[in-house]
Amino acid sequence: MIKTDILIIGAGPTGLFTVFEAGLLKLKCHLIDALPQTGGQCSEIYPKKPIYDIPAYPEILAGGLVDKLMEQIKPFEAGYTLGERAETLDKQEDGSFIVTTNKGTKHQAPVVVIAGGLGSFEPRKPQISNIVDFEDKGIAYIIKDPEVYRDKKVVIAGGGDSALDWAIFLADVASEVSLVHRRNEFRGALDSVEKASELAKLGKIKLYTKAEVKELHGTDKLNSVLIKSTEADVEDVLLEVDNFIPLFGLSPKLGPIGDWGLEIEKNAIKVNNAKDYQTNIPGVFAIGDVNTYPGKLKLILSGFHEAAVMCQFAYQIINPNKKFVMKYTTVGGVEGFDGSKKEAKKEVVQSIV
Amino acid sequence: MIKTDILIIGAGPTGLFTVFEAGLLKLKCHLIDALPQTGGQCSEIYPKKPIYDIPAYPEILAGGLVDKLMEQIKPFEAGYTLGERAETLDKQEDGSFIVTTNKGTKHQAPVVVIAGGLGSFEPRKPQISNIVDFEDKGIAYIIKDPEVYRDKKVVIAGGGDSALDWAIFLADVASEVSLVHRRNEFRGALDSVEKASELAKLGKIKLYTKAEVKELHGTDKLNSVLIKSTEADVEDVLLEVDNFIPLFGLSPKLGPIGDWGLEIEKNAIKVNNAKDYQTNIPGVFAIGDVNTYPGKLKLILSGFHEAAVMCQFAYQIINPNKKFVMKYTTVGGVEGFDGSKKEAKKEVVQSIV
Ligand SMILES: Cc1cc2nc3c(=O)[nH]c(=O)nc-3n(C[C@H](O)[C@H](O)[C@H](O)COP(=O)(O)OP(=O)(O)OC[C@H]3O[C@@H](n4cnc5c(N)ncnc54)[C@H](O)[C@@H]3O)c2cc1C
Ligand SMILES: Cc1cc2nc3c(=O)[nH]c(=O)nc-3n(C[C@H](O)[C@H](O)[C@H](O)COP(=O)(O)OP(=O)(O)OC[C@H]3O[C@@H](n4cnc5c(N)ncnc54)[C@H](O)[C@@H]3O)c2cc1C
Repeated sequence: MIKTDILIIGAGPTGLFTVFEAGLLKLKCHLIDALPQTGGQCSEIYPKKPIYDIPAYPEILAGGLVDKLMEQIKPFEAGYTLGERAETLDKQEDGSFIVTTNKGTKHQAPVVVIAGGLGSFEPRKPQISNIVDFEDKGIAYIIKDPEVYRDKKVVIAGGGDSALDWAIFLADVASEVSLVHRRNEFRGALDSVEKASELAKLGKIKLYTKAEVKELHGTDKLNSVLIKSTEADVEDVLLEVDNFIPLFGLSPKLGPIGDWGLEIEKNAIKVNNAKDYQTNIPGVFAIGDVNTYPGKLKLILSGFHEAAVMCQFAYQIINPNKKFVMKYTTVGGVEGFDGSKKEAKKEVVQSIV
Repeated sequence: MIKTDILIIGAGPTGLFTVFEAGLLKLKCHLIDALPQTGGQCSEIYPKKPIYDIPAYPEILAGGLVDKLMEQIKPFEAGYTLGERAETLDKQEDGSFIVTTNKGTKHQAPVVVIAGGLGSFEPRKPQISNIVDFEDKGIAYIIKDPEVYRDKKVVIAGGGDSALDWAIFLADVASEVSLVHRRNEFRGALDSVEKASELAKLGKIKLYTKAEVKELHGTDKLNSVLIKSTEADVEDVLLEVDNFIPLFGLSPKLGPIGDWGLEIEKNAIKVNNAKDYQTNIPGVFAIGDVNTYPGKLKLILSGFHEAAVMCQFAYQIINPNKKFVMKYTTVGGVEGFDGSKKEAKKEVVQSIV
């Protein structure tokens, strides 16, 4: 059982910044995310695109924003359960909650913060009848550790940035990379398209366009895929492979959180924005894109504010007999759980001459 | 009469960021501030100190934050009335407001946003009976343009950072700089104290400690000050001077805003935080440190969120027949009123090989 002060579901920008605000109040956090990496939409959907409305950043790449947040929260040593989806929420007699993931990992905390964004990112799967039989037996929808594919024969399917970028990356790792796409045209950043094009010309990526993977074969594990052209006069190809990675994008689904007894409106969780961003379940807060209230804007800067406001109320739940006192970081400094300490240079009081 | 879409009282971080959020909605802003510079508390009280809780900035100097905000809002060409205090608010028959400053400058807008922080910064004046007679006739409490003091004989009073820093700066500008302080010890950043000490040793700053300016003499304008020691055995000094600048700090006062018929609580303006941060006067909003509501934190990041939320409602007042639609800056880019345009690189759609 993982125990913490504040259990955060969702490691997007909102969940990450919560670690900082909680840390200032000496509260420890643990984050759960379905994705293998932190950063939520910023990391998963548009890491290389610029954002212009982060206050005091005239321009910052979404991926760069996540890096900065990770650096900022480092002193507060959060725990992470990544690549797992929070599945159930159970209230305990002592008032605390137990959250269990789809892989059975259990977490316990007096306060739960749902910072789930648009929901847990779930892969769009191709329609192949026996695909589930090969999941984790040659088939994966998300690449967690590219080393898994070293010296393997890999087929990637998809026509967007992830398919292009992973085909490029794995060209140097796998023994063979094939890229299958339904259309002739790929959609992505210019340099990705150009780089993939170059590798295809060198034969380092084998290209199958206007084609789809239609059949999967193997006994214990995947050992071949059937690639069918969408054009009548092109013959099917039966390709021997170790791995098939369909990268058709991830779509966020509120998913299991929808069944936790929370008030849901417009696919988001209703909260009390007049006070503390608490949900209808006391002790459970919802902040960032996942919540809704009159005037709600699904903006990163709003998640930051909601996190700060929410933490003072979490503090009160965890420390019912202490008074919450806000201290400016400039005045009080930042003391990490790792022993680090940042603070403004002290003024001196001394005579001149 | 200065006319604009959104008239902002207070050019602290909150007021500044409002220009950006309004600009995204194609609304023009004008700012009024009692101080001669923008940045509010950050510029006036602690420009050289680090802040640690600006999201995605593990550390940033308060002055640096203001610089970044000024850069971010530049495309939206805000107007500024600096060094003047907003004095009166008058509702017009057409629903708009006229705000007049202590210097008589008039501004008209359909929406007024009070981002006045802890209030308008007002100088602490020394207790010398005839001091008001010499204001702007040799006496100033804020240095707006240091060139005014070129080749002048200047007396500065005070023992903190501003007194030290301006004495250092003016040592190169004025023909004579004297620094008068009640105590023997100065309180300030180490390098300021050291630099002032060096200049005092070189005779470039004449030092009078344990002393106070007690009398002012002159006819049309100031021409001498009497410096009295706090020690019995030290003689008074009558110093011929052109300028006397008492720098005893600025203290914020809600001031005239308190008489505008707004609901005030704990020296702050009550707003509807469940929706739009509007005050009890429709069309007048209050955001940042100046407002209060349950759970309010006087933090910079809260002002940013409040500005974003508020602007959508200002948009609705100004454009009653249009529907407000939020666009991500990453997707829609940022189009300045100055003709500039920032946007994410477009994706390409093209075939490989
Ligand atoms: C193309 C694009 C451009 C954008 N441009 C801007 C912009 O310019 N400015 C701006 O402010 N915003 C922009 N946004 C929106 C911004 O990215 C979101 O507001 C922000 O990511 C929300 O952060 P969050 O932490 O609340 O949620 P998210 O970033 O969505 O993160 C939520 C995380 O929770 C996880 N999660 C959810 N449920 C579960 C569960 N049950 N178990 C485990 N994990 C779970 C998800 O996997 C996800 O990683 C843009 C979004 C997109 C897609
Ligand atoms: C020493 C110190 C350390 C701090 N540390 C932190 C920190 O670490 N993190 C953090 O988030 N915050 C910190 N703060 C607080 C932070 O500076 C404020 O929250 C922030 O400045 C508020 O911004 P604002 O724009 O709302 O108001 P302000 O910065 O106060 O600006 C308001 C402006 O309005 C003007 N004004 C008011 N009334 C009138 C009028 N009638 N006419 C004309 N002008 C008017 C004032 O002159 C002022 O310039 C700190 C503050 C101090 C003093």
